[in-house]
Amino acid sequence: MDEHKKTVLVILPVRDDQRARLDAAARGCRMLYVPAEQVTETQVREASVIIGCVPPEMIRASDRLELLQLSSAGTDSYIAPGVLAGSTVLCNATGAYGRAVSEHGVALTLTLMKKLYLYRDKQNECLWSDFGTVCSPADATVVVVGLGDIGLQYARTLKAMGSYIIGVKRRPGACPACVDELVLTDDVDTVLPRADVVFAALPGTGGTVHFFTEERFRSMKNTAFFINCGRGSAVESSVLLNALRSGEIAAAAADVAEMEPLPSDHPLWKQRNMVLTPHVSGGYHLPYSFERIVDIACENLEHWAKGEAYRNVIDFETGYKR
Amino acid sequence: MDEHKKTVLVILPVRDDQRARLDAAARGCRMLYVPAEQVTETQVREASVIIGCVPPEMIRASDRLELLQLSSAGTDSYIAPGVLAGSTVLCNATGAYGRAVSEHGVALTLTLMKKLYLYRDKQNECLWSDFGTVCSPADATVVVVGLGDIGLQYARTLKAMGSYIIGVKRRPGACPACVDELVLTDDVDTVLPRADVVFAALPGTGGTVHFFTEERFRSMKNTAFFINCGRGSAVESSVLLNALRSGEIAAAAADVAEMEPLPSDHPLWKQRNMVLTPHVSGGYHLPYSFERIVDIACENLEHWAKGEAYRNVIDFETGYKR
Repeated sequence: MDEHKKTVLVILPVRDDQRARLDAAARGCRMLYVPAEQVTETQVREASVIIGCVPPEMIRASDRLELLQLSSAGTDSYIAPGVLAGSTVLCNATGAYGRAVSEHGVALTLTLMKKLYLYRDKQNECLWSDFGTVCSPADATVVVVGLGDIGLQYARTLKAMGSYIIGVKRRPGACPACVDELVLTDDVDTVLPRADVVFAALPGTGGTVHFFTEERFRSMKNTAFFINCGRGSAVESSVLLNALRSGEIAAAAADVAEMEPLPSDHPLWKQRNMVLTPHVSGGYHLPYSFERIVDIACENLEHWAKGEAYRNVIDFETGYKR
Repeated sequence: MDEHKKTVLVILPVRDDQRARLDAAARGCRMLYVPAEQVTETQVREASVIIGCVPPEMIRASDRLELLQLSSAGTDSYIAPGVLAGSTVLCNATGAYGRAVSEHGVALTLTLMKKLYLYRDKQNECLWSDFGTVCSPADATVVVVGLGDIGLQYARTLKAMGSYIIGVKRRPGACPACVDELVLTDDVDTVLPRADVVFAALPGTGGTVHFFTEERFRSMKNTAFFINCGRGSAVESSVLLNALRSGEIAAAAADVAEMEPLPSDHPLWKQRNMVLTPHVSGGYHLPYSFERIVDIACENLEHWAKGEAYRNVIDFETGYKR
């Protein structure tokens, strides 16, 4: 190890061309590329910069660590006390997942509206059978809870399909062109009863845990669809299950669960009006997302090398971008 | 029966308000509302106007019949020789199904891209398992074969999701705003090799039977998705099955089959990269479609009463709107 050089530890599965871009962004540093599953505590503690989601317990508030650039949008496990030193800057990959996760959300929404999950089950039985009336996005009032990159791109597509969009946002701001009405999170209860679709794209922060309570499901239409592509912690599994069993809502779809992986004996798997995917909307499932993560990492490496302000800096108090 | 009044036979399941609109459009006529499954040959032969798809074999070229207003977009079984008298005008319901069928097509497209059918099967096994990389409409070149109401609305949504749209059309015309390239049907072979998605929305006319040949599937990318929301006759089931088995294309989805209902022992049901729905994208599955059918029927009843030119008149030679 060259004692005079700072170490940049990269645990992303980069291609050669992406590696060359990272090298160029941190010229003069010691670059250490290690597969995520092979990273050691020593490597973590040597690093001045880490690119990728190393296990939080390996960091142990290393005061050498100047920048931790996550490959995820979620920051939950890194803002806990004792994980990062006060001098470490935490940046996430907000902006990399909007396309992938919003598209998955649109796919889940249409699956419920067009009953494709029921038809899939019938296909497996080789049965040509008709489930009757379907819904249209063009007739739907869609409440998008969480208007970050994911929620906004989801809203844009549903708006293009004719939906009336109500955006729900933590902080006041201008109403985006694809949103018909904007309300603050504190006022969400005034709009949930109007929703034909509730799309949840909330991050996993203290304020969003168990956000969708029994009362909130009860306030929704019996014909409403609930789609969760944010964090599983936004709904207790038992609350969601009860809402589906009791008919408080018509059906739900989720790419996330309160406990992941969802245990195989959990009744949500078999609930007839529930569609589940195993947290696959984000990650590296869409090559585009990974390209954007590398873009953000290169940009922040350059900012680090030049002592400039970073992109996507996380506020430890809220878990959100500052 | 009042011998002096002309009879209008309506076999649509209309609500009272819709019935009132039809009555008003044909004031002074004898209105006969009969459930489709109870209509008799005598009623058909008494009618000067029929609204709805009566069985073609009941019409037997009745020369009293001045106007047959179908509730379907398809006209195949009514343009056959001997069904309608030369004096009967045939109108279809083009324009009523674009929304419903295109939305179903978008839903099927996203189901393939996001592998939701595979995840549904895993859900039924209570298994949290990851199928890896997915596709995005934003990276896709989409060839829309048949640029009528359905194809055009499908193109509009995929364009809004970032796709590059190549429209394939029978007759020359202006390129719609949501279409990046327009080619004539005769030149379809020049664009199929570029498609990531082929969306078929062809009507069932002589020229479209077995349109998608073995050679055409072979010319597509191995990674291409084929989606058929037009007529089952556009592809021989055995040709589609071979394309899927041999890996000429990655996967297919269809709301139609060459033989409907698809026999329960047909191998397409169980083909692992095939998604099937039982001709449910149109019909009366979306209330909006039925409203539009009633609109068209009212409009054409008025035109009939006033001796004006009809909307959606079908050319017996081609099966298309004149």
